[in-house]
Amino acid sequence: MQIAIMVYPGFTALDFIGPYEVLRNLPDAEVRFVWHEPGPITADSGVLMVGATHSFDETPSPDIILVPGGLSSFEHARDEKVLDWVRRAHETSAWTTSVCSGSVILAAAGVLRGRRATSHWMALPMLKPFGVETVGDERVVRDDKIVTAAGVSAGIDLGLWLFGQIAGDAKAKATQLIIEYDPQPPYDSGHLSKASAATKATASALLSRDTVKQGQLTAPAGLLWDAAIRRVRGKGTPVRS
Amino acid sequence: MQIAIMVYPGFTALDFIGPYEVLRNLPDAEVRFVWHEPGPITADSGVLMVGATHSFDETPSPDIILVPGGLSSFEHARDEKVLDWVRRAHETSAWTTSVCSGSVILAAAGVLRGRRATSHWMALPMLKPFGVETVGDERVVRDDKIVTAAGVSAGIDLGLWLFGQIAGDAKAKATQLIIEYDPQPPYDSGHLSKASAATKATASALLSRDTVKQGQLTAPAGLLWDAAIRRVRGKGTPVRS
Repeated sequence: MQIAIMVYPGFTALDFIGPYEVLRNLPDAEVRFVWHEPGPITADSGVLMVGATHSFDETPSPDIILVPGGLSSFEHARDEKVLDWVRRAHETSAWTTSVCSGSVILAAAGVLRGRRATSHWMALPMLKPFGVETVGDERVVRDDKIVTAAGVSAGIDLGLWLFGQIAGDAKAKATQLIIEYDPQPPYDSGHLSKASAATKATASALLSRDTVKQGQLTAPAGLLWDAAIRRVRGKGTPVRS
Repeated sequence: MQIAIMVYPGFTALDFIGPYEVLRNLPDAEVRFVWHEPGPITADSGVLMVGATHSFDETPSPDIILVPGGLSSFEHARDEKVLDWVRRAHETSAWTTSVCSGSVILAAAGVLRGRRATSHWMALPMLKPFGVETVGDERVVRDDKIVTAAGVSAGIDLGLWLFGQIAGDAKAKATQLIIEYDPQPPYDSGHLSKASAATKATASALLSRDTVKQGQLTAPAGLLWDAAIRRVRGKGTPVRS
């Protein structure tokens, strides 16, 4: 069971680390982190680096495709190589999935046309131009073999649901116990329908600020990215194992 | 506000990516991933690599210390350099925190002696020899400036709670909405008290299997780790940004 998780500069890490932590427990799971080329990829925070292990070309037909979100997903949704990989891999996948604004990339690739799908609440309107029937009140939305999740932390719920479909409820429940997923949020404002107007305004302001930062990050991205690689690689001394 | 997240070979990624995704939204957050030396560190899955950005020596006095768990935490709890860093950094930290079996490392460093603390349900008994008052029925346990969380996914709840303490409820609620943390697990077996005997048996068997795998991973670890670096680094072509 090959699981291909797309990692791109500007990704939101929890989007895919949630389902990764669940799905890697699938029997015979082979997880790959895919991008144009293997190598370190920097998150939206500008400080977290995750290694892409395989290129798109090396990974033509995964069983599961998972595309995470991030403020830069809108930019990568214009990358023809990314869209081409999604389209081709989707032809033979058992499941094609996304978390958060990752669904914008699926939509741009054309695989969500006429489908029910969700996304981060801020990104939902961006699905409509691609002919998607958007769903804002379900955390995990399935349409045939396509499964999309709401924002960031919703990937854990997607992962567990998908695990159950593939390996059965018994193993899925055991995996829930392994990751001790018995959530107890100290607040109850994790969905637009529960958050106050003030909370929504603060969240929107913070996301807008991040969008500006993201713009600054992606404008001279080559430099920042090279600097990040130098920072990690330049020390010379192999890390102890 | 400097946040030092320890990353070590064999870490469980969700343990720290959960609180990272929350705490990075703190005003003036400066997140660091620390280890003996900067460079890529491989997770317990053997396939996920995360970049350590700073060494212990470069990070003597973070405001927040966060130690994640992983089956290899018991091994690293015997690394004197690790323990020495925890002890010294704890002297000046505002908050010293752990998720999952990360508390075993805090305990081995001596900072949990006589304190109330929790851990992953499988690791809880291992805290006792270090004089810890173990707590198995609370997801996030605070004792003065020390905050420990239960297994893996509990780090998200720890992160949100801590965010509220530092930046107030209003911003914490906005951050909950940003990560759309409105959990809807498809099952209800995320805690020992809720899981059936069969689920617990399956989970224990899976964890034991992973412990064996982990042993295989850490025995000839130098080789596997070097191979991982070569795999990620050897391609030559810089990753597109």
